[in-house]
Amino acid sequence: DHFIVCGFGRVGRNASYEFQRANAPFVVLDRNDQRVAKATAAGMLALVADATHDDCLREAGVARAKGLIAALPSDAENLFIILSAKTLNPNLTVVTRVSEEEAGEKLRRAGADTVFTPYAMAGRQLADALLRPHVLEFLDFTRSNIGPKVTMEQLCVTPKTEFTSRPLGQLLESHKSGVIVLAVRKQGGETIFNPPADFNISSGDFLIVMGERPSLERLEQILTR
Amino acid sequence: DHFIVCGFGRVGRNASYEFQRANAPFVVLDRNDQRVAKATAAGMLALVADATHDDCLREAGVARAKGLIAALPSDAENLFIILSAKTLNPNLTVVTRVSEEEAGEKLRRAGADTVFTPYAMAGRQLADALLRPHVLEFLDFTRSNIGPKVTMEQLCVTPKTEFTSRPLGQLLESHKSGVIVLAVRKQGGETIFNPPADFNISSGDFLIVMGERPSLERLEQILTR
Ligand SMILES: [Ca+2]
Ligand SMILES: [Ca+2]
Repeated sequence: DHFIVCGFGRVGRNASYEFQRANAPFVVLDRNDQRVAKATAAGMLALVADATHDDCLREAGVARAKGLIAALPSDAENLFIILSAKTLNPNLTVVTRVSEEEAGEKLRRAGADTVFTPYAMAGRQLADALLRPHVLEFLDFTRSNIGPKVTMEQLCVTPKTEFTSRPLGQLLESHKSGVIVLAVRKQGGETIFNPPADFNISSGDFLIVMGERPSLERLEQILTR
Repeated sequence: DHFIVCGFGRVGRNASYEFQRANAPFVVLDRNDQRVAKATAAGMLALVADATHDDCLREAGVARAKGLIAALPSDAENLFIILSAKTLNPNLTVVTRVSEEEAGEKLRRAGADTVFTPYAMAGRQLADALLRPHVLEFLDFTRSNIGPKVTMEQLCVTPKTEFTSRPLGQLLESHKSGVIVLAVRKQGGETIFNPPADFNISSGDFLIVMGERPSLERLEQILTR
């Protein structure tokens, strides 16, 4: 139930910091022993290993892993890792970045669940920074560690919760949650934006919520107890 | 009141598409005539010009422009553009991307209002794609052109609006807006997350809202009439 980060370059490093912040278990693989030393010094579990070799992926526990990030510098090597990892564990969620937009389709066909194109993302965000600066500022604010630490999270409604098949408004009011429910993602994948207070949540639904971290944690405890 | 995009590479191109989608006036500058031809073919206003020359920035109307994107491949050239542009128009908002995180501080000191590091962003998002896939899916959903086209926007409360100094709940209820107000950004920069229904909005405030595009447009019309 851990994550594997292949490559500790600029992308892999930032992904690893994010896992660390979230207290999620993960292991870093990199061919370069200096980069691995850097990861270790930051308190991460890291191995000098070539992620394009099946043996190394096995050593990193790919068979029981939850997800993998393919963040080597070349699209070809990431494609290779994705094919190998998906063969060793078909249930693994695999995400990657691509330098050339045209390579994205190939990586998706190789089994990548999500493919990011950093340059395209950066372009859109630069335009957004001029078109709607306060939205961006607000989203940054949800990322920074100062201020009220507002963030977005997904909360799963489990079979145990008392709120299964009861209206959403009741859940939020009775707990003075201070949380905004942006959407409900039904088990089938259907997404309902801005669900009304009389919306009945069911087991297996995900609530897409925004709020201060302590409020979200409180709500998560209620939903999973 | 237009935008200037310096460089029509991968980042500049995607920023330009975003301006096009938003119907915002902009001009593209690139040294390479083939890239300029590509922009022109996409229906954009584009000039073969070297943005590191003051003359070219003047030709692009920098003196009356609202914002500029410095998206040349090198950090050094972007720094040069930022210094020149800010000298020609101190009120200009300038945003840029940086390949090395360490260069970010230099660009900020040169006058860049926002500096993105695409690799760092990509790393964080890859981790997010594994840690909270449904949040990411939801945000993607707000970007895509299919589905209910939910998006985030900033809406300014103008001096004219009848809702200035009246409670927010009244505004939203009386217009059955279907819009979620995530936050209010006060004129001084203070941000109030999840404002209560009895919150009084004032002229100069920005509402950070999420909703379907037509609903947001209706609300914007009410707020600016
Ligand atoms: Ca969680
Ligand atoms: Ca607007």
